[in-house]
Amino acid sequence: MTSEVVHKATLAKRAASVMNTVTTDQKNAALLTIADALIAHTADIIEANKLDLQNGEAAGTSRSLLDRLALDEARIEAIAQALREIALLPDPVGELLEQFDRPNGLHIEKSRVPLGVIGIIYEARPNVTVDAAGLCLKTSNCVVLRGGSAALESNRKIIEVLRQALETTALPADALQLIEDSDRASVNEMLKLNGLLDVIIPRGGSVLIRTVVENATVPVIETGAGICHTYIDASANADMAASISLNAKAQRPSVCNSMETLLVHEAFASESLLSLAEQFKAAKVELRGCERVIQLISGVKQATDADYATEYNDYILNVKIVDSLDEAIAHISTYGTQHSECIVTEDASNAARFMQEIDAAAVYHNASTRFTDGFEFGFGAEIGISTQKLHARGPMGLPALTSTKYRIIGSGQIRG
Amino acid sequence: MTSEVVHKATLAKRAASVMNTVTTDQKNAALLTIADALIAHTADIIEANKLDLQNGEAAGTSRSLLDRLALDEARIEAIAQALREIALLPDPVGELLEQFDRPNGLHIEKSRVPLGVIGIIYEARPNVTVDAAGLCLKTSNCVVLRGGSAALESNRKIIEVLRQALETTALPADALQLIEDSDRASVNEMLKLNGLLDVIIPRGGSVLIRTVVENATVPVIETGAGICHTYIDASANADMAASISLNAKAQRPSVCNSMETLLVHEAFASESLLSLAEQFKAAKVELRGCERVIQLISGVKQATDADYATEYNDYILNVKIVDSLDEAIAHISTYGTQHSECIVTEDASNAARFMQEIDAAAVYHNASTRFTDGFEFGFGAEIGISTQKLHARGPMGLPALTSTKYRIIGSGQIRG
Repeated sequence: MTSEVVHKATLAKRAASVMNTVTTDQKNAALLTIADALIAHTADIIEANKLDLQNGEAAGTSRSLLDRLALDEARIEAIAQALREIALLPDPVGELLEQFDRPNGLHIEKSRVPLGVIGIIYEARPNVTVDAAGLCLKTSNCVVLRGGSAALESNRKIIEVLRQALETTALPADALQLIEDSDRASVNEMLKLNGLLDVIIPRGGSVLIRTVVENATVPVIETGAGICHTYIDASANADMAASISLNAKAQRPSVCNSMETLLVHEAFASESLLSLAEQFKAAKVELRGCERVIQLISGVKQATDADYATEYNDYILNVKIVDSLDEAIAHISTYGTQHSECIVTEDASNAARFMQEIDAAAVYHNASTRFTDGFEFGFGAEIGISTQKLHARGPMGLPALTSTKYRIIGSGQIRG
Repeated sequence: MTSEVVHKATLAKRAASVMNTVTTDQKNAALLTIADALIAHTADIIEANKLDLQNGEAAGTSRSLLDRLALDEARIEAIAQALREIALLPDPVGELLEQFDRPNGLHIEKSRVPLGVIGIIYEARPNVTVDAAGLCLKTSNCVVLRGGSAALESNRKIIEVLRQALETTALPADALQLIEDSDRASVNEMLKLNGLLDVIIPRGGSVLIRTVVENATVPVIETGAGICHTYIDASANADMAASISLNAKAQRPSVCNSMETLLVHEAFASESLLSLAEQFKAAKVELRGCERVIQLISGVKQATDADYATEYNDYILNVKIVDSLDEAIAHISTYGTQHSECIVTEDASNAARFMQEIDAAAVYHNASTRFTDGFEFGFGAEIGISTQKLHARGPMGLPALTSTKYRIIGSGQIRG
């Protein structure tokens, strides 16, 4: 018997050939139609969401997770509004990237095409369901969604509403598929679905991402962990260094672009680290330090190698005093996850060296690492932040959901 | 104990930070130096190659494989010349791809950077050893090479020569690593070496590629099989159709961009297929046909579903008569490998539909699929032909061996 995963991925693959021929106007109209349908079915969606919340409470789900799962009128309006904004973005599909003529008269064009069928595996946030659907439809892709079981009732109702609404548009309803089987086996099946899925994008915590990367035979876009550093150089402006490092740590510690370790040049440390540490303490940040930090600041716990390798996503910060830019670069090369790294300095040549030598998706001079974000970069959308080097790196906008195709136009050319 | 694979990949990763700072001039000078070194050590290399040939003969290796393995003065000169040509190509590393300013004053630049450490797993052709080394060095990458055991003595000598020559240049010798352990376990170890290898590129037959795709946790660039089609439309120019389809099949059947199945519109078939079949027979191509072809042409074997799904790489061709462009597109969508597909037609709207609706790396109108090739496209180099949709698709030139990095220059910006 065909499994749910194979059945729905097959329907999506068939729909991909229709999606390959729809126009930008048709896609944008469909995005507005499904946004309206979400609003029109607000009550139904909230009712389905209540079932998820009840199941979650019965299962002892934490208050913060239930909060992220909960939908109300305002949240559904925000989700629909996000679709309307996706409709306003430029369409990358069809964009002519290169064209050239060969001496034999062949004319060659390279242009953007959809990826085809995208598998998205994510956790219990029903807004991701709509956001992923909107981004995939805008880029002429089909999508097979596999959300967390905690949001199954909400996701089922949302996809039912979206698919019904698509029936009234030029886009095929089968472009949107939801895997309802909440067994882990359905994830594993998706990961091996070469030939039906063109790419898998995991969106969620590090365990989910590791599972996908380690088991997928389908190509993956990894949106991974961020152990981000800020290095305060000897010549840093003290106020700027404090402002940037506090923002990088404490403005929203739970996200991947927040700072986990602060590296401080000893010349800066002897002048200003004590007062900076007071500001972190005032922001309720627990400090863990190297030997020299412990000697300088009372009540600081020793930072271990394991601490330097941890993405806390919390109000905890490692602080290490270094003797040189080289030592800072070496530390980041050892413990960083090639996400976002910052140098605060007034020394242009140190800044240039840091920006060149640090291997990361985003390197900052005198700005907070918190800016690594598709909206902050002005992309108008964000599929995630890629921490791999293939295909897309850093914040991913709509072009990250496209591939390319060569069109070769001849007049009978053959190869000699 | 650290294995050879981990040891050498670690050395390569360390060397990557040096490669990240070398200049284009330094790289080009090093390429010329290693080309000279190969020539200077021609006798040593031929001697090592003789050991491989003797081992191969003792093991009963086929004549054609021994031919591909054999090195002589002319071949070594050709290999060295390829390095000199790589030196002449433009350097993609450092290329500024985008830059923009945000309303908050952040200046954002996106530029090309090396991938880092590339693992290349390939079969018994020592020219690949030098070619891969040259392409990786040109793009500021380090490379861990794992060639077939049949070429081990040749590869060991070649890499010894190249590494010694690099010692006299600005590039680190450790940028080039050869895995000498010929056990399959060393391949499997490379496939899981996340954190040390940034990407793996398999170069070889379908079994090797499948092994890599199915087992790697490191991101892979798949250079896969080609089941390529030529569709002769009702309105095709008969001479052009014959010339293109004969070239696509018989000019070099062993390569991935050669044709495996010819689809012919019934209007063309009734006029011209008989004479075209005679030309294929004269070119010693065995034909396998659908029912209608068998009725039309005597002595043609029935083509099975398995035949349509086979990359023959040989003088064998499936021929199928179709009633419409739609049927041709449907056949290609079922059996094609998204490599190279051609329509021969004088009908512009049919050509446009074929080029839009066929999902492949390269789609041709009135030209042979044999042109899918980095050199034929004018790239001056070819790492392989990607049949996946992520990162690079179709013939890969030097930019396919790069990633990108965002540099963000601020003046104290923090996120609100």
